[in-house]
Amino acid sequence: MGIKKTPKSLLFIGGDTRQIRAANRIAECGNRVYIFGFNMTDSEKFSEGIGRLENLEEIDGFDAVVLPLPYTTDGENINTAEGCEKIEISEIFRKLPKPLVVLAGKCDRKIAKEAEKSGIQLVDYLEREDLQLLNAIPTAEGAIQIAMQETKHTIHSSKCLIVGNGRIGKILARMLAGIGAEVTIAARKNRDHVHAFANGFKSTSICGLYEKIGEFDIIFNTVPSLILDSDLLIKTRRNALVIDLASKPGGVDFESARKLGIKVIWALSLPGKVAPDTAGDIIGKTILTILDELEVK
Amino acid sequence: MGIKKTPKSLLFIGGDTRQIRAANRIAECGNRVYIFGFNMTDSEKFSEGIGRLENLEEIDGFDAVVLPLPYTTDGENINTAEGCEKIEISEIFRKLPKPLVVLAGKCDRKIAKEAEKSGIQLVDYLEREDLQLLNAIPTAEGAIQIAMQETKHTIHSSKCLIVGNGRIGKILARMLAGIGAEVTIAARKNRDHVHAFANGFKSTSICGLYEKIGEFDIIFNTVPSLILDSDLLIKTRRNALVIDLASKPGGVDFESARKLGIKVIWALSLPGKVAPDTAGDIIGKTILTILDELEVK
Amino acid sequence: MGIKKTPKSLLFIGGDTRQIRAANRIAECGNRVYIFGFNMTDSEKFSEGIGRLENLEEIDGFDAVVLPLPYTTDGENINTAEGCEKIEISEIFRKLPKPLVVLAGKCDRKIAKEAEKSGIQLVDYLEREDLQLLNAIPTAEGAIQIAMQETKHTIHSSKCLIVGNGRIGKILARMLAGIGAEVTIAARKNRDHVHAFANGFKSTSICGLYEKIGEFDIIFNTVPSLILDSDLLIKTRRNALVIDLASKPGGVDFESARKLGIKVIWALSLPGKVAPDTAGDIIGKTILTILDELEVK
Amino acid sequence: MGIKKTPKSLLFIGGDTRQIRAANRIAECGNRVYIFGFNMTDSEKFSEGIGRLENLEEIDGFDAVVLPLPYTTDGENINTAEGCEKIEISEIFRKLPKPLVVLAGKCDRKIAKEAEKSGIQLVDYLEREDLQLLNAIPTAEGAIQIAMQETKHTIHSSKCLIVGNGRIGKILARMLAGIGAEVTIAARKNRDHVHAFANGFKSTSICGLYEKIGEFDIIFNTVPSLILDSDLLIKTRRNALVIDLASKPGGVDFESARKLGIKVIWALSLPGKVAPDTAGDIIGKTILTILDELEVK
Repeated sequence: MGIKKTPKSLLFIGGDTRQIRAANRIAECGNRVYIFGFNMTDSEKFSEGIGRLENLEEIDGFDAVVLPLPYTTDGENINTAEGCEKIEISEIFRKLPKPLVVLAGKCDRKIAKEAEKSGIQLVDYLEREDLQLLNAIPTAEGAIQIAMQETKHTIHSSKCLIVGNGRIGKILARMLAGIGAEVTIAARKNRDHVHAFANGFKSTSICGLYEKIGEFDIIFNTVPSLILDSDLLIKTRRNALVIDLASKPGGVDFESARKLGIKVIWALSLPGKVAPDTAGDIIGKTILTILDELEVK
Repeated sequence: MGIKKTPKSLLFIGGDTRQIRAANRIAECGNRVYIFGFNMTDSEKFSEGIGRLENLEEIDGFDAVVLPLPYTTDGENINTAEGCEKIEISEIFRKLPKPLVVLAGKCDRKIAKEAEKSGIQLVDYLEREDLQLLNAIPTAEGAIQIAMQETKHTIHSSKCLIVGNGRIGKILARMLAGIGAEVTIAARKNRDHVHAFANGFKSTSICGLYEKIGEFDIIFNTVPSLILDSDLLIKTRRNALVIDLASKPGGVDFESARKLGIKVIWALSLPGKVAPDTAGDIIGKTILTILDELEVK
Repeated sequence: MGIKKTPKSLLFIGGDTRQIRAANRIAECGNRVYIFGFNMTDSEKFSEGIGRLENLEEIDGFDAVVLPLPYTTDGENINTAEGCEKIEISEIFRKLPKPLVVLAGKCDRKIAKEAEKSGIQLVDYLEREDLQLLNAIPTAEGAIQIAMQETKHTIHSSKCLIVGNGRIGKILARMLAGIGAEVTIAARKNRDHVHAFANGFKSTSICGLYEKIGEFDIIFNTVPSLILDSDLLIKTRRNALVIDLASKPGGVDFESARKLGIKVIWALSLPGKVAPDTAGDIIGKTILTILDELEVK
Repeated sequence: MGIKKTPKSLLFIGGDTRQIRAANRIAECGNRVYIFGFNMTDSEKFSEGIGRLENLEEIDGFDAVVLPLPYTTDGENINTAEGCEKIEISEIFRKLPKPLVVLAGKCDRKIAKEAEKSGIQLVDYLEREDLQLLNAIPTAEGAIQIAMQETKHTIHSSKCLIVGNGRIGKILARMLAGIGAEVTIAARKNRDHVHAFANGFKSTSICGLYEKIGEFDIIFNTVPSLILDSDLLIKTRRNALVIDLASKPGGVDFESARKLGIKVIWALSLPGKVAPDTAGDIIGKTILTILDELEVK
């Protein structure tokens, strides 16, 4: 996790405890950090050397401005803590001196257009492979924590199915096995079966699930498309626990599960929920890497 | 986990969900099981083949009577669910036909004397090495669950100290490492240091802790004597989490920790709390093993 | 490792013990298998149901012809066992009825041209991702075997460096850690450092090696370009063992190492050498997968 | 592995490369070390600060004299390298000034009597629990090295049986699983089955072996009594590999195995053979611990 030596100057606008942690980490590495758009309570959690801006014009320029994850919830204003004045995205883009690099989480078309219009270089740090890889760690742990809380048996020696062998599936498999679970991976591609075999996990094709799904105590889905449909759920144990880690549409037919009496937990955005400090560290690390890469270019 | 074939007849008197699970498991293995001293709600959770006694004289004799864990809380009556009539221990010992084997959890002098007086063979299944070894699994998992719930960072890559290298310490070390923690074991005996070395864990003497304790994010104590005293706690990080798994007096100076602002969680009887089904399975297995051993003699 | 049900007919021409094993496995799965170009001793090792051809015209057609790995050593003839008549590649391509699928290992331009000219579909099974992933297992084990044979200390608690985090590097890291080694991975890409971190390994950049290489007892190279040059070797312990697993030019300045008195072992084609049965099984599995895929199309 | 600070003075008489290594390690820790009874070639391998005695009377006294492992092979003379004059044990005991502590490997009645007669405190370091625990590491690795060398398949995904769940069995199980083998432990005691279960290994009773032994590719015996008798060997795969790690009578009916064509390797004293440096380090560490303990008393 090499961190280069040229000190940068950054402005954090808005966000929750993760941004505080990220800002502190970045400051610890010898960079100048300023904040704007945090309430009193949050402000106190920033390290001493960090500067608190009263207004956005106060300082000449920054190597980058960091917006929260997600950068907005209403599509207009930056996601700030309660008790802060609203800050419109367009306002920031207008006021801050150019050229400007803006690092934001979960960028959509709107902010992309605004950035283009204002000649701002926009980077979505949520899209970064390193952040996603690192986030797989707290996501997998969070999934295990939920499994521990929601079952009356141990993870040790329970039969766990992981649907999908991507970033999260791989780490989750290793951690579950590390606690003593029997892990089976369901995946489509031959290479995933070989990967499972090499790492000592059982594997099954998605088709094969129709015969095997009844064996499992805990089922983790990581694939964002409807795999656990009513046909599969009917064959699932009624007392199994299903944890869906897939974003957007999810991978479980929640309605069928409800009717069958199978408990499903749709667990989204786990890093921020179960390990906000780690999630903040990850954002901090990723931002430093992005800045290093921008500099090299 | 070999289970022999001669069917036994057992009577379960009182207890919580663990006894229900144990009884069901023992019945599944082909034994005749009867229950007494459960309320309506609990009664329904027993498997179909299990007989519900109305009064204790109803049946001639049993291979064994199983009392709960702990067998009593008030020292007079058996630990039964709410809504049940009280059942005095002395009454049971009087009424049930002899010779009789009674399996009970957490036996004290009182029950031991009563048993001797009545010519009853009393076995404390909580004292069994196999039960204690098996219970170390849900205990370790429960400790990890608490650590996950009470910290804002991941277990992965956190620095964990385990004080003591007994049954629980050993399994906890393996599970923590399985999730990606950096594990250090603090122990007195040379053989524990060698064991740690062989298994890839760092280790330190108890004396050595004075210099090292400040490094750790999470500290698990498994030793039932005051090791984490005020001298050590002063050197502990204020934001560290201490989880005390040691029974009776515990191993932490709770008052000093409170003053220093270090969070300590004293986690007792974890198997029944975090994994009652597994805890019940373990009681069931242990009872079957005890019965096999009694038969062999 | 799903194997489909339509029986195939295959002809194995030439090869060593791996092809015998592959042929036997494929026959066991219910396919018709014929052989040609094996000597008497080898012929006896094939399973009973396998047909021995006297001449290539004997049978009408095959779903596929399987050539050895590598298919040739002299560029003209197929790689057959001692005591067999030479079989020219061009002759086979001429004689066998078309359309024909030929599966061969380590194809070069020559065979590719010949195949194109003759209207033969040529598949190089050595190029298959699944074969390469599976071969990483015996390669990693072979590297460990060599390390065990060539050192006077245990792998356990020795400091191992793996240069490269590809297929072989990843499995090797896991196996070495599984025996108790301290593993560090040297890699260029940020994603490899994150992968190492997630999996509990230390990592270093290639540049960082200049400072750290002196720490290691055993150094495994998996990258096929000159990384362990004289500058790095000078900083390497004289009593370190270097195992180069990289093909073609290798990744070590062998001459410098020799002068410095550092032992280097260039270990190529390990699967066939240390685990020919497993290597044969892998070829067998891969061929079955290729046939399934061809059928589906 | 704490090493205390009071420097000791030790005399090493005779031995192989392990004693050289042990002496060097002990010298490195700040102790004064002298040698006697090594030939020219070996003498050069000792560190610079180590003193070479010409005759035993040369120096006044030592905290301890260290004899080799085993201390003798002929029962009369100390086990010295070729080219050294013979040194009778009785002579040493006579000549060296008392009080004297002698640390020797594999003590028998003879040396014990001699020691008692001469008022010498004799300690057999081979009997030490810490040495035996530590030696289990190179023993397990050596067993794996042999398995790798003697089979044509990988350890990964092979079915391995370990008879016995003692020091060696436990470490061997963990290492084999670490490479990807499927491990089953055969043991008598219930606690061993529970230990296996807790650590994620399958287990079987010794009786159960009659049904299961035919499944295994590699069988490791660690129990020094005849368990793998002709009845069990008849049910073993003819192409299985049996590695017997048990001392003295061994645990395999070698004659039956020979007749059945099952390959058995009786692998004794592995640490000194496969990892002499590690074996020497272990002797060195153990001697330091013994000296510390003697001092404390």
